[in-house]
Amino acid sequence: MNRNIIGIEEIASYIPEGRISNYDRKEQFGINDHFIEKKIGVKKVAIKAADEETSDLCFKAFGALSNKINIEKGKIDVVCVITQNPDSNIPHTSAKLHGLLDLPEKCACFDISLGCSGYVYGLSIIKSFMDENYLSNGLLFTADPYSKIVDKNDKNSSLLFGDAAAVTLMSSKPVLKLGRSLFGTIGKQYSALTCENGKLFMDGSAIFVFAAKYVPEDVTALLKINSLLLEDIDRFIFHQGSKYVVNTISSNLGLDPARVAFDIYDYGNTVSSSIPIILEKEIVKKENKRILISGFGVGLSWASGILNRL
Amino acid sequence: MNRNIIGIEEIASYIPEGRISNYDRKEQFGINDHFIEKKIGVKKVAIKAADEETSDLCFKAFGALSNKINIEKGKIDVVCVITQNPDSNIPHTSAKLHGLLDLPEKCACFDISLGCSGYVYGLSIIKSFMDENYLSNGLLFTADPYSKIVDKNDKNSSLLFGDAAAVTLMSSKPVLKLGRSLFGTIGKQYSALTCENGKLFMDGSAIFVFAAKYVPEDVTALLKINSLLLEDIDRFIFHQGSKYVVNTISSNLGLDPARVAFDIYDYGNTVSSSIPIILEKEIVKKENKRILISGFGVGLSWASGILNRL
Repeated sequence: MNRNIIGIEEIASYIPEGRISNYDRKEQFGINDHFIEKKIGVKKVAIKAADEETSDLCFKAFGALSNKINIEKGKIDVVCVITQNPDSNIPHTSAKLHGLLDLPEKCACFDISLGCSGYVYGLSIIKSFMDENYLSNGLLFTADPYSKIVDKNDKNSSLLFGDAAAVTLMSSKPVLKLGRSLFGTIGKQYSALTCENGKLFMDGSAIFVFAAKYVPEDVTALLKINSLLLEDIDRFIFHQGSKYVVNTISSNLGLDPARVAFDIYDYGNTVSSSIPIILEKEIVKKENKRILISGFGVGLSWASGILNRL
Repeated sequence: MNRNIIGIEEIASYIPEGRISNYDRKEQFGINDHFIEKKIGVKKVAIKAADEETSDLCFKAFGALSNKINIEKGKIDVVCVITQNPDSNIPHTSAKLHGLLDLPEKCACFDISLGCSGYVYGLSIIKSFMDENYLSNGLLFTADPYSKIVDKNDKNSSLLFGDAAAVTLMSSKPVLKLGRSLFGTIGKQYSALTCENGKLFMDGSAIFVFAAKYVPEDVTALLKINSLLLEDIDRFIFHQGSKYVVNTISSNLGLDPARVAFDIYDYGNTVSSSIPIILEKEIVKKENKRILISGFGVGLSWASGILNRL
């Protein structure tokens, strides 16, 4: 039996309609338009309905995928959900989703616990798992609704995080193929981003200092192991943590801002969904022959990869 | 760069010293010695100290591994923790463990959320991830301390579940190599095993009926895709859910009980650690040329694989 070349065939996403405007919170948090538009780059954060569960967000992302492409559900071999805000810890959200989507019994399901680096990890994990097990059709979901844990009075997180989900169809008919990836962890700094007793804590400046140093270094190392130069990349998609962090990473790499994606004004930092939501828009542009993606955050953790158009 | 053949080099485990005796609870639960010894096969359940976290159990399992084999921590490329009872949901437990173990920055860390099928899944996931990313040394931890969520007055779960952790060193110098694996899910039956608001609920008879039907079918299919017969397997290690479920699966497959491992009398059903704790004892027996492992539970989910001695 031959192994297939597994890669990204299609991407779809779901961003809930609910919004909280940051302009309405200027007085509460002592911020101004410059801070909203130039510093964080988030005008509104998307917020799910109170009764929408993580699996529901995934289910709706799958609905968006089905509107784009015909999915034969009976041929789905694996479902992976990246989340640190599951419906509950037992069972895994992918199992609930398996039931909601009415998928076949011979379908592997597992969740991966990772934050903003999760999509890059997830692509490599599901791709290699599919190769290893001769699987042809996989669904990689990201859904990490931080509204479950964000304290609305915490300026550090409340103005930034939005709810969303994305689904990436991995198949043996890919549009984008994965190059080599790199992964890293500084577990000793985990306390910069934690959730205890249902409350998120984020030391934004510690994460910023970490990302500004490690992500450019990682991108440089990634290009080297892929035998590529910065010029060989058509589009850079960094985790959309904030406008300031994306600009700083770009600047530290000496990148023209026009080559770097940033577009979360309307919905915020959607954690592991931030890269696939942007990638969904970039995948249709045929001039993007080679895309670099890099995620960073909770752990502290980072991961970078190259996507090559076939 | 050549890809290595990644497999299991060594296994170690940690079972906390604390025990609750089921003989002391005969009156409370209306059970007798026959039930304890012949039906569930659990005389005592292991229980961690109140201040021992999931990452601590993993850390101690790593200590046991270090006592067996010299580990160069600077060469560890990936850490994966299988758990549905993490220290907390953010960060992932593997990141905390990365810090506790003082591992290098160029080390991938992620958690997988799965229950009793988790070890078989985890082996395939970490093996394929290591192959894909040219990694040579990985640590696969299982640690799912159910004492965090078991209601001590719930007969269905309290007499069964024990706390433990195991660690499997995956390397390019394997003793056991993975054959092909199979995975399955019935998400529509997830409600048979859940945790809501910190309390475990288990419909033991639903899980039993599921396992008695699906696991033998899966083993038969697994042997077929590996071009093997039941006689070709030297040792069968099923998830140690209870003596009754292991015996029923064995009987449904027509297996001589002497070929099937069962040994949880002293510590109980340790969820995803149940297979590696037994495998640790079986790996040293050179006559075990081919071992079949199969896990089943939360999801509902199952996974089976073949381990071949090199």
